[in-house]
Amino acid sequence: MDQFSNGDIFIGEIIGTAILILLGAGVCAAVNLRFSKAKDADWIVVAFGWGFGVMAGAYTVGTLSGGHLNPAVTLGIAINEGDNWEKVPLYIAGQMIGALIGATLCWVAYHAQFEANRDKDNASPTLGIFATAPEVRKPVANVLTETVATLALVLPLLAFGLTKGIGESGLSSLLVAFLVVGIGLSLGGPTGYAINPARDLGPRIAHALLPIPNKGTSDWGYAWVPVVGPLAGGALGALIFKAAF
Amino acid sequence: MDQFSNGDIFIGEIIGTAILILLGAGVCAAVNLRFSKAKDADWIVVAFGWGFGVMAGAYTVGTLSGGHLNPAVTLGIAINEGDNWEKVPLYIAGQMIGALIGATLCWVAYHAQFEANRDKDNASPTLGIFATAPEVRKPVANVLTETVATLALVLPLLAFGLTKGIGESGLSSLLVAFLVVGIGLSLGGPTGYAINPARDLGPRIAHALLPIPNKGTSDWGYAWVPVVGPLAGGALGALIFKAAF
Amino acid sequence: MDQFSNGDIFIGEIIGTAILILLGAGVCAAVNLRFSKAKDADWIVVAFGWGFGVMAGAYTVGTLSGGHLNPAVTLGIAINEGDNWEKVPLYIAGQMIGALIGATLCWVAYHAQFEANRDKDNASPTLGIFATAPEVRKPVANVLTETVATLALVLPLLAFGLTKGIGESGLSSLLVAFLVVGIGLSLGGPTGYAINPARDLGPRIAHALLPIPNKGTSDWGYAWVPVVGPLAGGALGALIFKAAF
Amino acid sequence: MDQFSNGDIFIGEIIGTAILILLGAGVCAAVNLRFSKAKDADWIVVAFGWGFGVMAGAYTVGTLSGGHLNPAVTLGIAINEGDNWEKVPLYIAGQMIGALIGATLCWVAYHAQFEANRDKDNASPTLGIFATAPEVRKPVANVLTETVATLALVLPLLAFGLTKGIGESGLSSLLVAFLVVGIGLSLGGPTGYAINPARDLGPRIAHALLPIPNKGTSDWGYAWVPVVGPLAGGALGALIFKAAF
Repeated sequence: MDQFSNGDIFIGEIIGTAILILLGAGVCAAVNLRFSKAKDADWIVVAFGWGFGVMAGAYTVGTLSGGHLNPAVTLGIAINEGDNWEKVPLYIAGQMIGALIGATLCWVAYHAQFEANRDKDNASPTLGIFATAPEVRKPVANVLTETVATLALVLPLLAFGLTKGIGESGLSSLLVAFLVVGIGLSLGGPTGYAINPARDLGPRIAHALLPIPNKGTSDWGYAWVPVVGPLAGGALGALIFKAAF
Repeated sequence: MDQFSNGDIFIGEIIGTAILILLGAGVCAAVNLRFSKAKDADWIVVAFGWGFGVMAGAYTVGTLSGGHLNPAVTLGIAINEGDNWEKVPLYIAGQMIGALIGATLCWVAYHAQFEANRDKDNASPTLGIFATAPEVRKPVANVLTETVATLALVLPLLAFGLTKGIGESGLSSLLVAFLVVGIGLSLGGPTGYAINPARDLGPRIAHALLPIPNKGTSDWGYAWVPVVGPLAGGALGALIFKAAF
Repeated sequence: MDQFSNGDIFIGEIIGTAILILLGAGVCAAVNLRFSKAKDADWIVVAFGWGFGVMAGAYTVGTLSGGHLNPAVTLGIAINEGDNWEKVPLYIAGQMIGALIGATLCWVAYHAQFEANRDKDNASPTLGIFATAPEVRKPVANVLTETVATLALVLPLLAFGLTKGIGESGLSSLLVAFLVVGIGLSLGGPTGYAINPARDLGPRIAHALLPIPNKGTSDWGYAWVPVVGPLAGGALGALIFKAAF
Repeated sequence: MDQFSNGDIFIGEIIGTAILILLGAGVCAAVNLRFSKAKDADWIVVAFGWGFGVMAGAYTVGTLSGGHLNPAVTLGIAINEGDNWEKVPLYIAGQMIGALIGATLCWVAYHAQFEANRDKDNASPTLGIFATAPEVRKPVANVLTETVATLALVLPLLAFGLTKGIGESGLSSLLVAFLVVGIGLSLGGPTGYAINPARDLGPRIAHALLPIPNKGTSDWGYAWVPVVGPLAGGALGALIFKAAF
C-alpha cells in the first residue's frame, strides 16, 4: 500500500466500492424485485453481476488505491506486507462510505421498483438486496462458511500476484473478478457469500436508513457474521500465503 | 479523438455501431420472437449478447475511430479531453446511421420470424427488439435509472485507460464489453439499459420505418428518456473523472 | 497463409476442426439427448459450448495452420490476401475431414445416450446434434440469416487483426471465440447459426453414415443453405473489409 | 517439471487441488443440496464453477508446481517431456491429498446443508457432490466418454503452450480454465466429466470418511472408471501431440 497517497486511497476506495455495491446490490434487486426484467433469473446472473462489479470497481480505482474494496482483502494484504497498518483504517473508512453510496445509488436506480413495494400484499422482501442472510441460521456454521469462502478469495488473490505477466498485461483484476464469480457460484449457496464486511454492513446500514416501503427488518442479529467470518478468512489466507509461498 | 481522421471516424462509427446493434437487437429478437431457438432464454443471454456486441463493434473499428459507438461515450470523452468538440457531431451522425443499418440487418436476419407475426392471434410485441421500455413508466425515475447506469459505464471506461498494460495487451475493449454485461445484469431491470442514445433512437426509427406485420406502436412518448438519461450519465461520469483522477 | 506449410495446414485444420466439432456437436448432444446431465439447459450453454469449441480448436492448431476451422473464414482470408488461392482446397479438405472425425468422436462420447434412442417411443431427434435446421423453413430467408451471421463473424475477425497488442498478448483467438458466442446468442435463433459450411456438412455426412438407432432423416434438402449462406457472408465480409479499412 | 523443487511441487499441488475441489465440489453442493440459494441452477453454473475452480487453483500455485492439479495432466506432460518420471508420484500424491482437503473444506462450508440431510424423508443424494456418476451405467461406454473428454483437455493444453504471447501475458491458465468450462458444457452430459482421477477418487474417499447423515453409498464399483478413462485420455493426448506437432 506504500505506493498510494492517503488522499488517493480514501477517494479510490470510496469510488471503487460504490461501483462494486451499485452493481452488486443492483443484480440482487434485478432478480428479486417485481417489475424487473431480470426477475427470477438464474443464479449465474447473480454470480456474474457481483464479479463484474468487482471488475468495474477494481479497474476504475486501481491506480488510486490498488482497488481493495474489501476490509478482508485489506487485512490480508496488511498481514502479508507486515507493515502499513496505519493505512488500514483509512481503507476501511473509504470502503464503508463507498458501500453506503453504492447502496443508495442502487436504490435510486430501482426507485420505481422499491416504490411498487407500497402494495403490501405483493411486497417483495428487500433486505436480500442489501445484505446477506443464511438459508439455515446457525451462527457457527455461517461464520465457517464465510471464513472458508473468504479464504478462497484472499489466498489466491495474494498468490496471483506472483504469476509472470498478469501485472504487465493488466489481466490481474479480471482474474480476481472471475475468482469472485467462481466463489459465488460454488460457495454462495449457504449464506449468500458476503466475503467482504463492507459489502454487507454498509448496505445493511443503507437499508435501515433509506425510506423503502414495507422494507421489513434489517436483521441486526446476523450482522456480525458477515464481518467476523470474512475477516477470519482474510487473515487465514494471508497466514497460509506467508507460510507456503 | 485527435488521432483519427474525419473520414475514418465516420466510417468507423457506422460499421462499429451497425455490428453492435445487429448483435444487440439480435439477442432481443432471439429471446422474444416465436420460432427462435433462444425463445424465453435466461436474462444472462441478453446481457452477454449486448456485451459481446460491444466487443465485436469496438475491436472491429478501434483503429478507425476508437470505437465509441455511443453518443454518451463520445460526450464523456469530449468533456474529459476538453477539446475536439467539432468532431462530436460526426461521431453521433455515424452512430445513428450505423444503428439504423444494424437494426435493418437484424430485421433481415430474423425476417421469417417477423413475417410469422402476420398471425395476429400469436403476434409477439416487436418494439422491445429495437428500443427500450420501462417496466414501470415514471419518466423521472426512468431518467434517473438511465443516468446512474450510464455513469457506471462512462466513469469506469475513462478510468480503465489509466490501468497499466491493458492498452498494450489489447485487453481494454474486452473489459468495457464485460462492464456492459455487468451493467445489463445489474441495472437493466427497470428500463432495459439503453445507456446509449443511438442504441435506442436509431433502432426505434428503424422500427417505425420497417414493414413489420402487427408491429404496434413505436412509443415516441418515451423516446426522449433513453436520450436524456444516458447523456446526463455520460457527462456526470466525465465530470467525476476529471475531479477525482 | 504463406507462413504455414501444406502439411501443417492439412494436419492443423483436421485436428482443430475435430476439436471444434467434438465440443460443438457435443453441446448439442448434451442439451438434446435423454440421459444427459445438461438436458434442456439454457441457450447460454449452447452458445458458450460452441464458442469454447472455437477457442480450443483455434489455440491448439494456431501455430500449424492459423486455425481457420471454417471454409467461410478461409475464403474471406483468401479474398483479403488476394493470393494463396491454391491453399484454399487444402484448408477446406482438412476442415471437412476434421469435422467428420469430430462428429464421430461426439458419437463415441455420447454412445450410451445414442443407444438409448433404440427406445422408439422415447427416441430423441438426433439430426440437430450434427447439423443445423431452420425454425421456419424458407430457403431465401434462411440463406440471408446465415449470410448476415457469417458477415458478423468474418468482418470483425479480419479487423481484429489490426488491433494493437492482441497478437502479441495471444488474446486474438479468445476474442474470436467470444465473437462466436455472441453470434450464437444473438443470431442463432432462426437457423441455429452454421456460419461454417464444414461445421454443417461434415457432421451431416457423419449423421448419415453412423449407426444411430431411430436417427431419422439427414435432411439433404436443406444441406445447401448452410454452405451457400456462410460462403456468401464470408466473401461479403472480406469485400467490406478491403473497401473500408 | 524440471524448474520446480520437490517441496514446492508437493505443497503447490496440495494447495492448488484443494482450491479446485473446494470450488468444484462446492458448485455441485450449491445446485444439489436443499437450503442452498443456487438449488437447481442451470448447467452453465456447474460448468463455470468447475472452470473457475481450475483458474483459481492453477494461478495460485503456478509458480510452485506449474499447477497440474490432475494426474492425467501430469501423465500427459511426463509423456511429452519423456523425462521427469520420478516426479510423477509426487505430483499425484499432492493432488490426492489436496483433493481430500478440498472436499473436506466443501463439507465445512456446506455443513448446515449436510446436517439438514438428517431429515430422512427429504434427504438429498450426496455422492454427486463429491464424485461423478454416469447417467447410463455402461462401463465401456463410460470409460470411452472420459477418455474422449480428457483427450479434449490434454491435447489442447499441451498445444496451447506453443501459442505466441499467452505465456508472457499470463493468459495460459485462463484459457485452460475456459477449456474446462467448454468440456463441461459439451462432454459432461453422460458421466459428469471427471477428466481427472484425483478429482473423483479424492472426494469419493472423503465422502466415505465424512460423517454426513443419510449419505448413501460411495459407489466403489464405479470408482475405477474416472481413473482409467482420464489416464487413457491424457496419454492419448500426449501421444497425438508428440506425433502431430
